[in-house]
This record gives sequence, structure tokens and C-alpha cells, in this order.
Amino acid sequence: MRPEDREAPETVADLGEFNLIRRVTSGRTQPAATLLGPGDDAAVVVASDGRVVASTDVLVEGVHFRLDWSTPEQVGRKAVAVNLADVAAMGATPSGLLIGLACPSSTPTAMIDELTTGLWHEAARARVGLVGGDVVRCDTLVISITALGDLQGREPVTRAGAMPGDVVAVAGRLGWAAAGLAVLGRGFRSPVSVVSAHRSPEPPYPAGPQAAEAGATSMIDVSDGLLADLGHVAESSGVGIDVQTKLLEVHQRLIDVSSALGADPRNWVLTGGEDHALAATFPGPDAVPQGWRTIGTVRRGKGVTVDGETYEGRSGWEHWR
Amino acid sequence: MRPEDREAPETVADLGEFNLIRRVTSGRTQPAATLLGPGDDAAVVVASDGRVVASTDVLVEGVHFRLDWSTPEQVGRKAVAVNLADVAAMGATPSGLLIGLACPSSTPTAMIDELTTGLWHEAARARVGLVGGDVVRCDTLVISITALGDLQGREPVTRAGAMPGDVVAVAGRLGWAAAGLAVLGRGFRSPVSVVSAHRSPEPPYPAGPQAAEAGATSMIDVSDGLLADLGHVAESSGVGIDVQTKLLEVHQRLIDVSSALGADPRNWVLTGGEDHALAATFPGPDAVPQGWRTIGTVRRGKGVTVDGETYEGRSGWEHWR
Repeated sequence: MRPEDREAPETVADLGEFNLIRRVTSGRTQPAATLLGPGDDAAVVVASDGRVVASTDVLVEGVHFRLDWSTPEQVGRKAVAVNLADVAAMGATPSGLLIGLACPSSTPTAMIDELTTGLWHEAARARVGLVGGDVVRCDTLVISITALGDLQGREPVTRAGAMPGDVVAVAGRLGWAAAGLAVLGRGFRSPVSVVSAHRSPEPPYPAGPQAAEAGATSMIDVSDGLLADLGHVAESSGVGIDVQTKLLEVHQRLIDVSSALGADPRNWVLTGGEDHALAATFPGPDAVPQGWRTIGTVRRGKGVTVDGETYEGRSGWEHWR
Repeated sequence: MRPEDREAPETVADLGEFNLIRRVTSGRTQPAATLLGPGDDAAVVVASDGRVVASTDVLVEGVHFRLDWSTPEQVGRKAVAVNLADVAAMGATPSGLLIGLACPSSTPTAMIDELTTGLWHEAARARVGLVGGDVVRCDTLVISITALGDLQGREPVTRAGAMPGDVVAVAGRLGWAAAGLAVLGRGFRSPVSVVSAHRSPEPPYPAGPQAAEAGATSMIDVSDGLLADLGHVAESSGVGIDVQTKLLEVHQRLIDVSSALGADPRNWVLTGGEDHALAATFPGPDAVPQGWRTIGTVRRGKGVTVDGETYEGRSGWEHWR
């Protein structure tokens, strides 16, 4: 069969806007928090204590993800994960997602189906529904996600409450996504564990509300890199933070990958973003809940140090710079 | 002075992500509904009755707006307006906005400043704050907005409650934006009134909660065109709708513009989108609140007719089709 004889794959242009929305949302089960799901002018979601937590993230093809490095399903999972992690980092339980999808007319419907599978996969992991959204035409594939969250009576945990004497702890992985990115950057596809960590991070959503209930004084989602994000906490709280490397877990898998690539695994742990771990400060060692690992202390002063010294490596990611 | 001697304008790449976010948000007054504004992992907004209304719209340069037809400020105002109208159409009072902004590195900071002025202008008209968002790099300018709303104890007014015997009424303008688009399409810039209506629609936000309190049985934001959007109501409610042209207000300004262009002003009123009027059904003539204009009736059956007949004109806008 010559290529020109093959039937052209169905595109979003063939399907049309309304059919596409139906395809993304129909037949899906909405959790109880979704009072009114997709299909009307707006959705209605539970906000049990009279407040709603909300966060928006925008992911752009070629900037935040590459479809030659990740499948559409992985991109969908990641798009949801990065956003729900922000909601969890306030101490809230995710309650709903709105998806803005901009894509070329020529986008195959099959690609949207895979992306949708990924969106719903990660939404199910956090037990939330896709409650609304918009699909529009655009030359570039752009996924904009808004996550809503319910504090259920807890006070929001901001970046601004860390106090000297607090301990710093993390929940979730550090450095894995950076190792995966390094592997992909060299043209490799394995080891799968680190590559998957880059393609589809799995933030520890329940650890956010858990930390809030344990009395966390500040919390942040580690998206730019541990040191960069602790830097945001230090600045907002008007304190200094010291990370003690002897407390840092560097998984054997990261050590193995780093030797193969001639990289420093500790640099991945300290500066690699995109794992979407949660970092928080607690009033003392006894307040650190199960599953959280203490990695440092809050001190008077400003900035973030590693073992008392300024860290020389690259420490985070900023757009356009 | 030769062009190459001019100092290059400052761009978002010069400014960097964090400075850009500060620039968009700093020094702005947040209303009381904003419990926690921009700068943390997520925002916190009042949802007074334990529910939140949420809607997302994505606007793409070259598809939803053109920067040779509108100023960045007008684009900002429109981006907010189209989204808040969706929230109002549920019967909710707008409570907060999240802005996802994707733009090229070369975007002049001055352009972002103008866009921001427009976003805040329309937000102020609705008395809401820009509570959060994201700015990212993208070849195409894309503005993704999520609007939140507070039902304040009212039941959400969906598209699904219209009953035979109800009357159909609208609040806000119809056909003005379509007239403006027609004018711009011919290369004219005036009359200003219709061109402005296209560039920056001004939806009647308070009319949404007003209709909900008056017992509206269904409501929708007129974004695709009156007949197309009433078609969504008819389909969702399982009814037919008849629009009576003798009840339709066709403003003298539209008649003047249409004669100049050789167009049918009634077609703009019936099928022109983007004015973001609200259309609702009420249980009877006495229930129609002040400021709403009765334009038709709900009947048994299906579909939308005009004076009892199928309307032959183009009736709405669908992406990719």
C-alpha cells in the first residue's frame, strides 16, 4: 500500500468542537464533589467550608513536554499532576479540574483520545473529576489546567509561615524527573523508572492535607527544584533554610544512572524540578508526619544553604531566562 | 533616527517569569472575596454557600482576537468578559479570576502591561480580583482564563430547565459585536459603538443572579449567536423555542451600519455571537425581571424557530468547522 492510499486519520476538524467535548467527557464517572459537570456554561463543585483553593498551570508543546519524548497519555497525566500538586501544597484536597485545550485543526482524534485517557487517569488517582473546560484551534498544542481544592476546614498552608527552629521535610520523590530528563537528553529511553518519573510525575496528593493537619507552618510544591522552591519559602517567610545532605535520600537508582551519564545525582536531588514532591516546615521533629522525611532546618537570616554553605550548582528553572 | 538605532523595547524575556508575575499583580487591590491572592502555590477564594461555580475559556491570537483589530487592552477586557459571562449565566456572582498567559519571549513588556490593564479593567467592572495564574513561553499568544463564581445560596440555573409555556428573555446587547466584526472585516474602524462592542463586549453580569432570583428556569450566555445558544437550551431542556421578531429590538445604529454595508441587521441580532448577552427562560411574563426583554416563547417539540419558521441564515459559530 502506498502512503497516499492510506485513509487519512480522523482529525479534530472532522469531529468539530461540540463532538470533541462530548468525546472527552461522556461516559465518565464524576465524583460526589462534582455537583454539576461539563456541558453547561460553567461547572459547580463542592467547597465544603465556604472557601475554594484554585490554581492554573499552562503547558506548551516544545516547552513543557515533547511528544517525541512522551506519549499523549503521559502528557495528560503530567498536566493534571503538576496542577493538583499546587492544590495539595496548600493543604487542600483536590475537588475538580477544568481543562483548556488548544490544538491544531489537523490534530488526530486518536491523539486527543490518548491525552484524555491520561487526564482522566491522573484525575482518578486524585479522585477528582474533569468538570469543565474549553477546546479551541491553535497552531501550537497548549494545555491549560485549573485545579480546584477543598480545605475542609483546614487553614491554607502558605509559603510564609516558616519560623526559625522549624524542621524542613519532604514527601515524594526528588531528583527522579531530572534524572529522567538527563537520560532522554542523551537519547536513551531507559531506565524506565526515571524516564517515567519525568514523563508522568506522581505527586503525593494526600501528603498535603496530612501536613496541614499535622501543623505544617509552610508548604510548597517542588516544581522548580528543591533549593529554588525552598528559596521561595525562605523569602516569603523572612527566614533562612539549611538543607543537610546527610539527611537527603539519594536513591541507588539515581546513583546508577548518574554514574552511567557522568552526572552528580545530588545535584538532581537539590536542583531538579518537576517531581512535584511537597516540601513543608513543621514546628519540631515530633510534628513531622509519617511518610515525610526531614531534610533540614529553618534558621534566622535569609536564603537557602546546603550544609551551611552556598550551593554552587544551578538551582532551578525560570521561564524566558 | 534610523530604525536600527532605536533601543529595542523591553521584552518578557528581559523581565523574566517572576518579575512578570509581580508586574501583573503587584499594587492591585483585591476584593474581600479574595482570601489569598497571587504569589503562593494556589489562591483561596470565598465560596459562601459551600459550592463554587467555575468556567474556563481559552482565547488564541488570530482565532479569537487580532492585535491589528484590537488593542491589547481591549483583548484583556474581552478575555475576562467572555468568561465572567459564563459564570453569570449560572446565576452566580463572579468571585475570582485565574489567568494563564502563554506568549513569545519577544513579547514587549509594554504589550503585557496594556493587556493587564484590560484584564483588571473588566475584573473591576465585575468587582473581582485576579487571584492567580501562570505565565509561560509559547510561539502563539494564548490567554486562558478561569472564572470562579459564588451562588450565594441560589440554585444554579442550567440550560436544562426550560418548560413549554415559559417566556424567553434576554439581557444585554444582541448583534452589536457582529456588526462591529462586519465593519472591521471591510477595513473600517467606525462607527466606534459597534466596533467597541466587538472589541470589548460588556456583559450584564448582575442580570445573571437577578434572573436566578426571579426564578429563571434556564439560562445561557449568548456567545455563539442567539439562535445557536437557544438551540443548546432547547436541546438540553427537551423543548422547542420560538423567537418572535416583532419583539426583537434592532437598534437604529445597527440598521444604519447594515445599510452602509448592505447587510441584514436582523441576521446579526439572531446569529451574531460575542456580545455575551444573557438569554433565559421564565415561568411567565410576570417573572421577567426589570432590564430583561421578552423575545419569545418555549413550546413543546424541538429546535428553534423564528416566527414559527425555520431560520435560513447562518446560525452560530463552531470551532474547526
